[in-house]
Amino acid sequence: MVYADNAATTPLDKRVLEAMLPFLQDNYFNPSSAYRASIRVKSEISRARAVIADTIGAKEQEITFTSGGTESDNLAIKGAAYAYKNKGRHIITTKIEHPAVLNTCRHLEKEGFEVTYADANENGRVEASKIESLIRPDTILVSVMYVNNETGVIQPVEEIGAICKKHGVLFHTDAVQAYGHLPIDVNAVNADMLSVSAHKIYGPKGTGFLYVRNGVSLENVLDGGEQESGLRPGTENVAGIIGLAKAAELMKAELPKRMEKEKNLGNLLYERISKEIPGIKVNTDPEHRVPAIVNFSFERIQGETLLINLDMKGIAASTGSACTQGNGELSHVLLAMGRSEDEAAASLRLSLGCMNSEEDIRYIADTLCNTIKYLRAI
Amino acid sequence: MVYADNAATTPLDKRVLEAMLPFLQDNYFNPSSAYRASIRVKSEISRARAVIADTIGAKEQEITFTSGGTESDNLAIKGAAYAYKNKGRHIITTKIEHPAVLNTCRHLEKEGFEVTYADANENGRVEASKIESLIRPDTILVSVMYVNNETGVIQPVEEIGAICKKHGVLFHTDAVQAYGHLPIDVNAVNADMLSVSAHKIYGPKGTGFLYVRNGVSLENVLDGGEQESGLRPGTENVAGIIGLAKAAELMKAELPKRMEKEKNLGNLLYERISKEIPGIKVNTDPEHRVPAIVNFSFERIQGETLLINLDMKGIAASTGSACTQGNGELSHVLLAMGRSEDEAAASLRLSLGCMNSEEDIRYIADTLCNTIKYLRAI
Repeated sequence: MVYADNAATTPLDKRVLEAMLPFLQDNYFNPSSAYRASIRVKSEISRARAVIADTIGAKEQEITFTSGGTESDNLAIKGAAYAYKNKGRHIITTKIEHPAVLNTCRHLEKEGFEVTYADANENGRVEASKIESLIRPDTILVSVMYVNNETGVIQPVEEIGAICKKHGVLFHTDAVQAYGHLPIDVNAVNADMLSVSAHKIYGPKGTGFLYVRNGVSLENVLDGGEQESGLRPGTENVAGIIGLAKAAELMKAELPKRMEKEKNLGNLLYERISKEIPGIKVNTDPEHRVPAIVNFSFERIQGETLLINLDMKGIAASTGSACTQGNGELSHVLLAMGRSEDEAAASLRLSLGCMNSEEDIRYIADTLCNTIKYLRAI
Repeated sequence: MVYADNAATTPLDKRVLEAMLPFLQDNYFNPSSAYRASIRVKSEISRARAVIADTIGAKEQEITFTSGGTESDNLAIKGAAYAYKNKGRHIITTKIEHPAVLNTCRHLEKEGFEVTYADANENGRVEASKIESLIRPDTILVSVMYVNNETGVIQPVEEIGAICKKHGVLFHTDAVQAYGHLPIDVNAVNADMLSVSAHKIYGPKGTGFLYVRNGVSLENVLDGGEQESGLRPGTENVAGIIGLAKAAELMKAELPKRMEKEKNLGNLLYERISKEIPGIKVNTDPEHRVPAIVNFSFERIQGETLLINLDMKGIAASTGSACTQGNGELSHVLLAMGRSEDEAAASLRLSLGCMNSEEDIRYIADTLCNTIKYLRAI
């Protein structure tokens, strides 16, 4: 099987599992208990927090562990909206965000917040000047993703962060698809909040973190005990946290090598498809993209049919986000980029990772060329 | 080390870890993706849901996976409050609930809901007639825990459920400390919602479920993708869910044996402490308790000091809930039972599990007797 759906989830790195196992075996203690065995577990969580903070230029106490990217986005956006609602009730986001951001914003609209959804251009990029033009005196929060999960387009988060800082507006970025593919520094980006998921970086499912800049105070989304400084109650998913930290540590150490590999593989795939398959539309911004994600629409092809045919040949791919898969909806991202419904229905996302080989890419390209030819012939 | 803090968390059963491992290794696929490998993972989640439903007399689609007991409580209470707020804004709970329930209720009070906190009697039991007397025309929800986490007292949930049904009020019960210690049937209890955590039943941390009766519609607490029928978005913690189901399956198969063991060990410990240590106060209801939890206050003893001394002798115990440990607060449960501040500060909770042996109990009893004597002498 050739796995080309790394944007949906990644295999767990064996070294991550190895780091987790002691916490799934002997070190099972509740970190909130008072005896020494528990205190040792608690200190491992602190160490994990420091390791993760270090990967984004943050301080240890600015990292809050959550159950994943979706919860991080909810906590950032709802947490900020409720905490700063007396300052204003206007939020800016974009039409190409992940459902965790979009549906959180829609939820807030029902509660009296006003949300402006900025357009993307036809390359799938949001323009920083557009975001600036939407800021009003009652704007409290801007949420723009770092890298789009369907197109791989890198958004101008540094410029948007600077604009938000200038206007005294909070800036959140969903970095789920950026973390592990680009070096990230929360200060360079001027991010006040930044969401990350473990299972996109060869870590375990069910865990993630939210960076929250010192001085930014969020309202809780979940209420309960005193864990995570009271911001995220519930017994810590210790093994998950340890796994996330190990995945982050490996990511930081190997990032240049991983980026180089993703560039080589991603560009090879991109070029072969561009050159060898006629009647395609590129769904990305060639100037601003992470090479790991490749997204094309193929004329006269149904994406779902294409997926099934690729699956039969051992290739795991996607038509778009796994989180919207299966509800029959067309990609809101491609539609926001001005693609027609036919084009949106004809899309394929191939997302690569550091476990892919050049041989995988050749197999994908060969198979895709043949499959498209075959499907167009029948 | 003798572990007597099973109410805080339990060791992961080796058989549970074994069931999880394939999903931390080869079966890493995102269950929302469209290819066969993903669909197989998705069907394993369905199987897990059915296994769990079967343990409480529920239907498969009535089980929603969450990140644990705290999230389950939040989803049940906030979800019902927001969904039924047009019917009324009054909620009834008790003074002895877990912080996940209490702080969720306090959160709702800030949003215009009115919450009545029922008293417990001096044995730590809430009376069903008391709950009935508090029901008003605008009451929409009653939340009463099944078994108290500090005292082990079994609450009259069957009577309260019947009362709620009679009055057309939703009934939620936090069953985190009951599930695995008692047979539970959601229909016998007339529960509309029931919260469970995996790591209290030899399952993994970071996962749990909420039972939601068919016909009860909750508002989301987290917004995002379509997972868990849209009620709980975010990529599923697949390994966690599989582990939870395995733990639940083992629990069901072994429950009579586990209950017998907990009764023998718990009663032995309870009796030895009662008989051999003078100047104690029993913090439970001897008529209505799960034997696994034993809670006493010892005259002229500081609970924290006692804990440290037990820890030095290899015994892991607690003064109360791990979720409130370390913030220096006295047990709200013991205070609600009318214990004095001195008595609350002098408490010790020993919570046993099916991995304890009779030898453990003898060691705990011997050590505790000697330690109390020693501490009272100095």
